[in-house]
Amino acid sequence: MIELEVKQLYDKQQDLNGKVVKLAGWVKSCRSNGNFGFIDFTDGTCFKTVQIVFDKKLDNFDEIEKLNAGSTIYCTGEFMLTPENKQPFEVKAQNIQIFCATDSTYPLQKKRHSVEFLREIAYLRPRTNLFQAVFRVRSVAAMAIHEYFQGNGYVYVNTPLITTTDCEGSDQMFKITKLNFNNLPKNEDGTVDMREDLFGKQAYITGSGQLHGEAFALAFNKIYTFGPTFRTENSNTKTHANEFWMIEPEIAFCDLDGLMDIEEDMLKFVVKYVLEKCPAEIEFLNQFIEPGLKDKLTKLINSKFTRIDHKDVIDILKKAKVQWEFQPEEGGDIAKEHEKYITEYFGGPVFIKNWPKDIKAYYMKLNPDGKTVAAVDLEVPGSGELMGGSQREEDYNKIIKRCDEMGVDKSAIDWFLNLRKFGSCIHSGFGMGFERLVMYLTGVENIRDSIPFPRTPNNCDY
Amino acid sequence: MIELEVKQLYDKQQDLNGKVVKLAGWVKSCRSNGNFGFIDFTDGTCFKTVQIVFDKKLDNFDEIEKLNAGSTIYCTGEFMLTPENKQPFEVKAQNIQIFCATDSTYPLQKKRHSVEFLREIAYLRPRTNLFQAVFRVRSVAAMAIHEYFQGNGYVYVNTPLITTTDCEGSDQMFKITKLNFNNLPKNEDGTVDMREDLFGKQAYITGSGQLHGEAFALAFNKIYTFGPTFRTENSNTKTHANEFWMIEPEIAFCDLDGLMDIEEDMLKFVVKYVLEKCPAEIEFLNQFIEPGLKDKLTKLINSKFTRIDHKDVIDILKKAKVQWEFQPEEGGDIAKEHEKYITEYFGGPVFIKNWPKDIKAYYMKLNPDGKTVAAVDLEVPGSGELMGGSQREEDYNKIIKRCDEMGVDKSAIDWFLNLRKFGSCIHSGFGMGFERLVMYLTGVENIRDSIPFPRTPNNCDY
Repeated sequence: MIELEVKQLYDKQQDLNGKVVKLAGWVKSCRSNGNFGFIDFTDGTCFKTVQIVFDKKLDNFDEIEKLNAGSTIYCTGEFMLTPENKQPFEVKAQNIQIFCATDSTYPLQKKRHSVEFLREIAYLRPRTNLFQAVFRVRSVAAMAIHEYFQGNGYVYVNTPLITTTDCEGSDQMFKITKLNFNNLPKNEDGTVDMREDLFGKQAYITGSGQLHGEAFALAFNKIYTFGPTFRTENSNTKTHANEFWMIEPEIAFCDLDGLMDIEEDMLKFVVKYVLEKCPAEIEFLNQFIEPGLKDKLTKLINSKFTRIDHKDVIDILKKAKVQWEFQPEEGGDIAKEHEKYITEYFGGPVFIKNWPKDIKAYYMKLNPDGKTVAAVDLEVPGSGELMGGSQREEDYNKIIKRCDEMGVDKSAIDWFLNLRKFGSCIHSGFGMGFERLVMYLTGVENIRDSIPFPRTPNNCDY
Repeated sequence: MIELEVKQLYDKQQDLNGKVVKLAGWVKSCRSNGNFGFIDFTDGTCFKTVQIVFDKKLDNFDEIEKLNAGSTIYCTGEFMLTPENKQPFEVKAQNIQIFCATDSTYPLQKKRHSVEFLREIAYLRPRTNLFQAVFRVRSVAAMAIHEYFQGNGYVYVNTPLITTTDCEGSDQMFKITKLNFNNLPKNEDGTVDMREDLFGKQAYITGSGQLHGEAFALAFNKIYTFGPTFRTENSNTKTHANEFWMIEPEIAFCDLDGLMDIEEDMLKFVVKYVLEKCPAEIEFLNQFIEPGLKDKLTKLINSKFTRIDHKDVIDILKKAKVQWEFQPEEGGDIAKEHEKYITEYFGGPVFIKNWPKDIKAYYMKLNPDGKTVAAVDLEVPGSGELMGGSQREEDYNKIIKRCDEMGVDKSAIDWFLNLRKFGSCIHSGFGMGFERLVMYLTGVENIRDSIPFPRTPNNCDY
């Protein structure tokens, strides 16, 4: 008797015919005609399930045939190849031990539940086909990212989550504290005395690891971060969450063209990796969530991404025979409707580069024209902006000037600015929202369905 | 002319003899006799450096020979194998372009700096040999962990950082808020009205992903988390930080013995991986930080970890001819001095298992004796507790009883308790502090030197 996982049954099926195997897992569904029955069985190791056949010879047949979805069982039985059936094999039960029988209060019955309902039982939804597929793809995509960067010599850096350094603007950052809100220590002027808090001042949880990442890129050449980030946005849309994961690579001696090469290469690597490792999951998502998903992903691997200046995009948008909700304007931002149009226009991913300086951050490299910065957004069909990056301003005097023009508090980032004096070099980096990537890879349309326990305004259960 | 990284020079040295290469990176030191000179050169891709030889034929010889540590240069030169020297090769410069010359204000001069001083320039310390070694080992160890778990079929789960669920006790968790401390909304009774905050109630940043991890283990069988966790401890010791990274695997259908098998297997895999991928770093750390480090790590791979009950450890400690600061007591905790003694006693890693229930958490599996729980701590020589885990109580009635006995608020974790009704199964998990592992692997003795930007009480710069 061999204890095996369902995944192993699939991997080793040719060697198992006639062998007695032992399984432990859960009933997905159970049906019986009173003389024999079938259990659709999973142990979570594999998207595909196994059919267990049981009959009246089993002592506890009467209990087995009443098994409800979600019940936990141990099963010993004979593995049999069934080339004539739609499943490649089944297990003929010799013994089924019921460990935990669920009843009709179990929220996941054998029917299709809405994603809205499933969000309310976020602790059970990973048992459904949809979330088995999404969260395994998420895990495999994370591994693909680590493999890509480590395989190319990048150092993984855990930049701090708690910070007093402001990258994205502290009005967008959560404050953290150990103080008791109902008994705050006060200064003489009545304001809160933050010196009493654990860090001796107001601390935040971060919206980006970029600034710290730059310090490490100037030591290790190529680095990446991969961790959670936070925004306080009070926004209830399909694409906003208050907690999400980001990948932020930063590369020394790399300019904007080099950065686009890396972004394109990395994305293709990840897509290819997921297609190879998750064929059953992608098949399911292609069938039930986004028809055409598999084609979209396969096409991406073989496409050459378009690279176009922001001003040329505006030209195309202006010439388009479309009633825009937001009028495209030179020097202006690109709205969601524009992103969609432009990826359809080029029939694939598009790098929009060299953005108007006034709508971008102070740390981006000013181009020789004095008007634009060497920033780039990657737009992908169906999902819009997937990555945002830039060449960084490496000239100390120029970045100081930009800070002053844009009202950035230099004292809070003096160490970051010093990087431009101490061994400064041309360098570039980008950020990729991991949930955006998961949505692109799986076809799910709401960020709440791409992350295990989503955090959105007024929604922080579990 | 080939643009190459220093790592590539080492990897491809046999093919490069006589070729002209182009490098971009930083001066570690520069010395000259007025006719020719040597630059010790790095580009961060490799622990080892390259010697660049330059002479008076270069137009800017006078500037080059004055180059200070930390300066950024581009160098074109001829690669030459030098089997008679201590370096295997050098680069004879044909052209050196100075991109950013540092001056004497550069904080890292060519001398040995104390770790205390280096902590004050956390943004520059990754450029030193010590932190080049530590943070590359950290990155490689992280990859080893991902490879181990993904290679064994585990699903990587990003459990939420923002949470209202209490695993470790909310007095140990940071509160997060979007509210303005100097203008807090109040209830009629004068307390703060948390309904006005973004999540509509008090939220925290988490100290553990375990509870959420269990929900996913009961769907995917084997899962792991790897992310930051937070504690508010106002403790200034070598082993405490307020922000640290944890790995928390959780495995369905796995008991305490199975858990110890996994912990042992995983640790050996990670140690072996780091020894293979970071030979130069380990050599350096062995020489300058922890003499005997390499032996310690090599020995671990080939050792069998001891497994012993808590009560038998107490017996050994009581019989020991040692003046304890803390007297070992039946039913009591194991102090640092005891951990040290017991790993030396057995000459290697020790699993201490079956702990007194009163000093452990409510969710641990009660043993048949009614007095102990199926918990296990792994103690390693030199570092003490590296992992802590347990078989979880999977019986609904028993866990409810333990919650009541220990005063745990069941309403905040009802979903977690429900997992014991809906397809409950034997399951186990452990947590490993990633910084503890990095300290063990590198020999650094202070947690502040194992994490890029450490957060400790009154210390949240950068």
